[in-house]
Amino acid sequence: MAPQLEPFFKQVDDLSGSFIDRLRKAVAIPSISAQDENRKDVFKMAQFLASELEALGAEVEQRPLGKQPGKEHLDLPPVVVARYGNDKNKRTILVYGHYDVQPALKEDGWATEPFELTVDDQGRMFGRGSTDDKGPVLGWLNVIEAHKKAGVDFPVNLLCCFEGMEEYGSEGLEEFIQTESKKFFKDADAVCISDNYWLGTEKPCLTYGLRGCNYYSVSVSGPAQDLHSGVFGGSAHEPMTDLVNVLSKLVDPKGKILIPGIMDLVEPMSEDEKSLYPNISYTMENLHESLGSETGIHPTKEETLMARWRYPSLSIHGIEGAYSAPGAKTVIPAKVIGKFSIRTVPNMESEDVNKLVFDHIKSEFAKLNSKNKLDVWLQHDGKWWVASPKHWNFTAASKAVQQVFGVEPDMTREGGSIPVTLSFEQATGKNVLLLPMGSSTDAAHSVNEKLDKRNYIEGTKLLGAYLHYVAEEPMNH
Amino acid sequence: MAPQLEPFFKQVDDLSGSFIDRLRKAVAIPSISAQDENRKDVFKMAQFLASELEALGAEVEQRPLGKQPGKEHLDLPPVVVARYGNDKNKRTILVYGHYDVQPALKEDGWATEPFELTVDDQGRMFGRGSTDDKGPVLGWLNVIEAHKKAGVDFPVNLLCCFEGMEEYGSEGLEEFIQTESKKFFKDADAVCISDNYWLGTEKPCLTYGLRGCNYYSVSVSGPAQDLHSGVFGGSAHEPMTDLVNVLSKLVDPKGKILIPGIMDLVEPMSEDEKSLYPNISYTMENLHESLGSETGIHPTKEETLMARWRYPSLSIHGIEGAYSAPGAKTVIPAKVIGKFSIRTVPNMESEDVNKLVFDHIKSEFAKLNSKNKLDVWLQHDGKWWVASPKHWNFTAASKAVQQVFGVEPDMTREGGSIPVTLSFEQATGKNVLLLPMGSSTDAAHSVNEKLDKRNYIEGTKLLGAYLHYVAEEPMNH
Repeated sequence: MAPQLEPFFKQVDDLSGSFIDRLRKAVAIPSISAQDENRKDVFKMAQFLASELEALGAEVEQRPLGKQPGKEHLDLPPVVVARYGNDKNKRTILVYGHYDVQPALKEDGWATEPFELTVDDQGRMFGRGSTDDKGPVLGWLNVIEAHKKAGVDFPVNLLCCFEGMEEYGSEGLEEFIQTESKKFFKDADAVCISDNYWLGTEKPCLTYGLRGCNYYSVSVSGPAQDLHSGVFGGSAHEPMTDLVNVLSKLVDPKGKILIPGIMDLVEPMSEDEKSLYPNISYTMENLHESLGSETGIHPTKEETLMARWRYPSLSIHGIEGAYSAPGAKTVIPAKVIGKFSIRTVPNMESEDVNKLVFDHIKSEFAKLNSKNKLDVWLQHDGKWWVASPKHWNFTAASKAVQQVFGVEPDMTREGGSIPVTLSFEQATGKNVLLLPMGSSTDAAHSVNEKLDKRNYIEGTKLLGAYLHYVAEEPMNH
Repeated sequence: MAPQLEPFFKQVDDLSGSFIDRLRKAVAIPSISAQDENRKDVFKMAQFLASELEALGAEVEQRPLGKQPGKEHLDLPPVVVARYGNDKNKRTILVYGHYDVQPALKEDGWATEPFELTVDDQGRMFGRGSTDDKGPVLGWLNVIEAHKKAGVDFPVNLLCCFEGMEEYGSEGLEEFIQTESKKFFKDADAVCISDNYWLGTEKPCLTYGLRGCNYYSVSVSGPAQDLHSGVFGGSAHEPMTDLVNVLSKLVDPKGKILIPGIMDLVEPMSEDEKSLYPNISYTMENLHESLGSETGIHPTKEETLMARWRYPSLSIHGIEGAYSAPGAKTVIPAKVIGKFSIRTVPNMESEDVNKLVFDHIKSEFAKLNSKNKLDVWLQHDGKWWVASPKHWNFTAASKAVQQVFGVEPDMTREGGSIPVTLSFEQATGKNVLLLPMGSSTDAAHSVNEKLDKRNYIEGTKLLGAYLHYVAEEPMNH
């Protein structure tokens, strides 16, 4: 054990009651960013964080982001930035979290009041924001407090970036990060984000990759207005027939993408990478449990995780303009728009993917010899992110996990995107680590969101230990 | 000309002003069957018809149909039945029409008040129900009045069946027709329905066939709940992928049904039938105008009309359970239900079609080797109808068209279903003729519905002349 960890850990245990009180106070503020009427609570929560950080001796600023685009009667909540320590001989770690939460109403099916932290006899602490993301954010404050009270020197300079609009699209944050990477964040040597979850409930993980997402629309139009299928059926080219045909040429039932050239863009698997999969604490039963069915494509956990994390996938989401209600309607829709997206991975560049998608769809449509008109466009894209899990930032976190939990962490990627990750990487040029505190059963965004006491208290130790190992790691990047 | 037609025609011309007044009174009653608050007006319209018929000397009954299923606080409007004449030496013709109308609001885009008949300088009489179906219904009353005032013997016994729920599914009518075919309607020698439209604007038509409709749902389900495509994309069988694949195997972009065996059920075209098409007053420009585009499948009017009238067609209407809103949502829908229907023609029996559809879909799904679950079922079916256009009922109508309009009528079929047609044929066992009054531009169900004065007045002559020729036609069936 690093020499100062023992007194730090003991102090965390001694303060655990007050750390839970801190979380209770935070959960009690309904800082719901999506609801206008709660905007004042989002500001209140920013003030709470700023006051707590100041009381701990940090230099704090609440940075305004201006009016909310499209809702100009609302001010965007501030980004709470803080610096704790300013020693040129120490590494500087930039940490990110968010203090806003998803909406929650007791009548949605909560067993307890969503904005009253309620701890049950299994140590589950129920409350909106407990795990997403107030617990992890307060974890950093707890680390500072425990160091101060234990009289242990803080091992790094800490920069905090806590935002209040994460659950509503992180309005304004990307530009802010871009600007501050040259200013408030300019000293950062690495970034740590605690806003995702363990793969299971027992074993922590370090997350080093996320897939990107290219979202497409493909429209087929023909007649000037919807037609009656009795009157016109058989005499006119039907847009739905063409669209269904084109959509059926995108992906096969086993998930294989049928767009020529797409798989050629995918980075081949190295032996190193391959070796990470067998050790991961995940089973086919875990998959079946989360699906609620046994309709997985692949026979092994390794193939399943690779399919989710490091290979692209294509999903057809739905069709706009066709008849989508229950019941029966004999309509020939005049214009239908199919929606699908491709989850992207290294080294798929968005422009390359777009070209292959557009060419394939146009070529398949041409084969139909239809007089209808097809159009296809990108709705939005977000790039994939993969960090090197051998960087000292990860090595330090891995040692911290072993120290606190006695196991090697799962080295995971995620199938979905967390756009802020890439924003930090691109703006700072530094290694970014995702170091989650909560577990897979925490029900973020859902009813009965919770954070286990163990995850919160041992998680606080983990964040602190990570900073100590960061200070000790040799430079390798 | 049949000897009594001349004084009858002259009388119709002389009474044209009062016939238009009769239509004005009827249009002023907003007998909207779909709106609870107008149910009293539907009853008022029944009473109006009954009073007019009684004043003309008909024996009239308003037959109650009981409570409205699913809306038991409402009484169904009565069927107004009437008999005019009871001479065993005359043929008896049963005529059908409906006195309820579609909803209409000025603010929907009407140029005039929808429930005030407004005649413009081109003789277009605008008003809800003018052409659908109050004009045709009153046509029969006008025929009786003109005969009486001209002192011309009425050539047949007339039975009337005027319903008040046609625009809301003809609740209760089928059972009523079934029962009354042995009672009030038992003397009927043939049936005449005036509730459809000419193919164009200049030339009347006689309609001898309608397609049926088998409406299907096909569901594919997998996971227990919707999934996030980032998290699960690539690792689970996606119901949308499978459904789109199955739907793409139903029909090709040129409208060819891909279900094996379906086309073998279709009655071959006879030379007689084929000879009816070239004379029909219809052009490819008419098709393009009604489509609002040039996306017709076939190069000639004959093939186009055959595809609409005498060949089956398959239309895909939409998908329930998938993402159908504008915008982007990265969902993997857990269960999706495709809707499609087949327009049926002689000799496609519903059970045979169902078997071929179910077998084909199950076989195509089996080829996918998906772990998802597929189900397919018939939502509803309605049989096709084809009458012999050589029956005296049609010959009489054809002679009447030539007499009144100086042209041979188009012999048409329609692609959509008019269920009451088959109900009358099956219940009475007699030939049914569809003899429309309105033209293709009348905008039934739409804003600015109208009936041209010419169609109403010459149409009244047509209905009367038809009855005279009916009386003269030799028995051939």
